[in-house]
Amino acid sequence: MNRSDLIELIKKKKSFLCIGLDTDLSKIPPHLLKEDDPVFEFNKQIIDATHEYAVAYKPNFAFYECNGILGWQSLTRTIQYLKKFDVFTIADAKRGDIGNTSTQYAKTFFSPAQSGMDFDAVTVAPYMGEDSVKPFLEFRNRWIVLLALTSNKGADDFQFTQADGIPLFKKVLEKAKSWGNEENMMFVVGATQAEMLTQVRKIVPDHFLLVPGVGAQGGSLQEVAKYGLSKDCGLLVNSSRNVIYASKEQDFAEKAKEEALKMQTDMAEILISRGILH
Amino acid sequence: MNRSDLIELIKKKKSFLCIGLDTDLSKIPPHLLKEDDPVFEFNKQIIDATHEYAVAYKPNFAFYECNGILGWQSLTRTIQYLKKFDVFTIADAKRGDIGNTSTQYAKTFFSPAQSGMDFDAVTVAPYMGEDSVKPFLEFRNRWIVLLALTSNKGADDFQFTQADGIPLFKKVLEKAKSWGNEENMMFVVGATQAEMLTQVRKIVPDHFLLVPGVGAQGGSLQEVAKYGLSKDCGLLVNSSRNVIYASKEQDFAEKAKEEALKMQTDMAEILISRGILH
Repeated sequence: MNRSDLIELIKKKKSFLCIGLDTDLSKIPPHLLKEDDPVFEFNKQIIDATHEYAVAYKPNFAFYECNGILGWQSLTRTIQYLKKFDVFTIADAKRGDIGNTSTQYAKTFFSPAQSGMDFDAVTVAPYMGEDSVKPFLEFRNRWIVLLALTSNKGADDFQFTQADGIPLFKKVLEKAKSWGNEENMMFVVGATQAEMLTQVRKIVPDHFLLVPGVGAQGGSLQEVAKYGLSKDCGLLVNSSRNVIYASKEQDFAEKAKEEALKMQTDMAEILISRGILH
Repeated sequence: MNRSDLIELIKKKKSFLCIGLDTDLSKIPPHLLKEDDPVFEFNKQIIDATHEYAVAYKPNFAFYECNGILGWQSLTRTIQYLKKFDVFTIADAKRGDIGNTSTQYAKTFFSPAQSGMDFDAVTVAPYMGEDSVKPFLEFRNRWIVLLALTSNKGADDFQFTQADGIPLFKKVLEKAKSWGNEENMMFVVGATQAEMLTQVRKIVPDHFLLVPGVGAQGGSLQEVAKYGLSKDCGLLVNSSRNVIYASKEQDFAEKAKEEALKMQTDMAEILISRGILH
């Protein structure tokens, strides 16, 4: 999906909600455990219930990989199912390695004929620099979402160190924005750092930002929107646990839908009040 | 495998060679492509031919993931096969995420009952800080190998920036060494940065270092040993392409064995000349 289609989708759905599929066998409703592939069955029902309100879905690879081959099967089924809907898909995998290895990782997410997976975007870690990132940018209409400022406590350890006179996360933004453009790069900026979004926007005024950390991690949608919205919206705000684990009973999909609708309603108001929607 | 067993293994095999299993379908001998699982068959023959000379094996996850579910099967078979031998195993996966997600990643590599995989160690990226690393350290006799200074050109982009007055890779070493200890943490230091090993050893004199980049990437074993050896050896030097792709013909395993033996012979001489072996 290209940038203008993504912006259209946001306007059509009046939403910039991304739903994180951090699907954990120990947290899904027990009645699903009798299914052949409980993780996929859970995801399918969550997607069916919420796709009208979400513009993006973000499977978190760790939650699939820990189940080995079966997990990889659940993940592949999930991405194939997501392709039936008009949604942007993000592989939350935090990859990055030397050039020839990043090329292989890029094929994992972006070469469906080889890997069976077909994502619009993948999250990438910046530590290894330009040649670890560039191979992901060689696929037309595919995106990377580079870690800049994360939502966890450990963000303080390195991301705020003064790197050649500016915080490291700003240096990452400054350098990385020249590796790609607004059509193929987004950045992760955690909602728990909402006030930092003003500074981020000075460096990347038009790039999309993927904002995790609203909800379970304590970030606020209103704050994120206040400091982070661009003229085209420019935000994908992720919620995982708050939506997908809204209930652990038979009604889990219905409750997830209610949560997604609540967030979409708030987002529609924000988009209207900021003049992005009329 | 714990630290003293690893040191014993190095002394027994007179080797600190790690073989990187970056197994690429387009580079393996064509006669293997008729096998049900060509990647596993290649790995099996490489392992059979080289395990006397190598103390460690390092499957590079990107090369398996790009083949989707089949790739994950080849990878699982490979780690299960490696467990038959007296070798240290490293999942080269460059993972790292917020705490609850890193916990899931750790299960992938360290909980065989759940994932089918059973590695001694996993490579981890430091950008997200302490809480992204710690969950991996909660498994007894398992290790993380944290990226410090990598072997690629992109290492210059951030790893050498002055972070609070010292290069970022030194800050990573300084901070991270307090998160674990010499029994559960190693660091990646690229062979292409051999002269930097002196500075690394000032910060972590006793930790094991995993050193990629000898061979195809241009690093020198003699230089790495000169600057990097500790009193217990303290090095695992990785070679991937030079060993596993020594030949593309029927004799590929035999040629890989010759390359591994050549490296082991050099390593035995180094260990003796430095008084680590008698």
